[in-house]
Amino acid sequence: MRTGFHEDLDRISDDLVQMATLVGTAMSRATIALLDADLQLAESVIASDTDIDTIRDQVDELAVDLLARQQPVATDLRMVVTAMQMSSSIERMGDLAEHLAKVARLRYPDHAVPPELREIFVQMSKITQELAERVAAAIADKDVSAAEEIEKRDQELDELHRQIFGILVDPSYSSGVEAAIDATLLSRYFERFGDHATSVAYRIVYLVTGRRPNAEVDD
Amino acid sequence: MRTGFHEDLDRISDDLVQMATLVGTAMSRATIALLDADLQLAESVIASDTDIDTIRDQVDELAVDLLARQQPVATDLRMVVTAMQMSSSIERMGDLAEHLAKVARLRYPDHAVPPELREIFVQMSKITQELAERVAAAIADKDVSAAEEIEKRDQELDELHRQIFGILVDPSYSSGVEAAIDATLLSRYFERFGDHATSVAYRIVYLVTGRRPNAEVDD
Repeated sequence: MRTGFHEDLDRISDDLVQMATLVGTAMSRATIALLDADLQLAESVIASDTDIDTIRDQVDELAVDLLARQQPVATDLRMVVTAMQMSSSIERMGDLAEHLAKVARLRYPDHAVPPELREIFVQMSKITQELAERVAAAIADKDVSAAEEIEKRDQELDELHRQIFGILVDPSYSSGVEAAIDATLLSRYFERFGDHATSVAYRIVYLVTGRRPNAEVDD
Repeated sequence: MRTGFHEDLDRISDDLVQMATLVGTAMSRATIALLDADLQLAESVIASDTDIDTIRDQVDELAVDLLARQQPVATDLRMVVTAMQMSSSIERMGDLAEHLAKVARLRYPDHAVPPELREIFVQMSKITQELAERVAAAIADKDVSAAEEIEKRDQELDELHRQIFGILVDPSYSSGVEAAIDATLLSRYFERFGDHATSVAYRIVYLVTGRRPNAEVDD
């Protein structure tokens, strides 16, 4: 084993864990901004996304530098390539939190989320925060069981996504087309956050076991 | 220069061009399936997405294999890493075409797109097909001016995306909430297709010039 390879890889892993923690926090704060129509909080989430982007750039630079200096092969090489793919997914999770905050900002001082959908978005937000925590833990511990739990929780998120459409098309829905458009996009952002978490989980399973999970993430 | 490196890289580039061509065709066919409520065509687009996924897997395998065998550094290394990032973006463009087809299938025998939005979706479809062609050409020719043209066309797509929301919230809109939800998601899929095309274009600019375009793709 080349000296330094594992130190470099640990540094990359730490950065990915930090990114996952930050996107979890961003989701939590973006949801509060949405539900409370809190413009200042929304602006803060939007501004903070650059921190996540910066760590992503750092991960990618480190990974390319590591490839050039250490020239890893076999499993070591796969770990570096996978780290870059995971940084891309987690960075995208941060973008989705930012998108939630932008909807809150767009509708301020109004509330983007109509009363009949508040509770379901609270549930979606809880799941996405848990997903971010589990992604962080799964990366830190190379934990396959955590990865499997992520897939299960993502399915709950998909179910809530479907429920939102059910509420919107029900004759009792009365908050209008604009709120329906917002809710459709917001729900899609939560659902995509879950897809990316699952994508990271699958990559961990593949790295640890060499087995590719069957399911397509985004079907 | 190590023997074989450029042959390997050309093979990867050819595969990326083929992927871009396939996602352009998929967008074209998915739009027809949507506008004509053509179930068979929708099913065909959905089934064909695995072809795109297969080439993406092939690109990623080739790239990892190339890294292991050739151990490129500097610009050569960046080209291989960038190819993997581009394969991911183009594969995602294929998923978005598949999503359009799935909406067509979900609403069949009804039309998912209400009459007042047909023309605008036709325009979005034309732009996305052109974007796919330009992405293919930009990869094949490492053409920075093609990449710049992609960014411009993507902005037209973003403008159409905004126009759709304008139509949906106009008091004259009368096709109901379900059609508005569908249109919101469909428009989002077209718009994201453009974002991914722009992301590929930016990567080409960076590879060729060493300069990172300033704009964030997804803001």
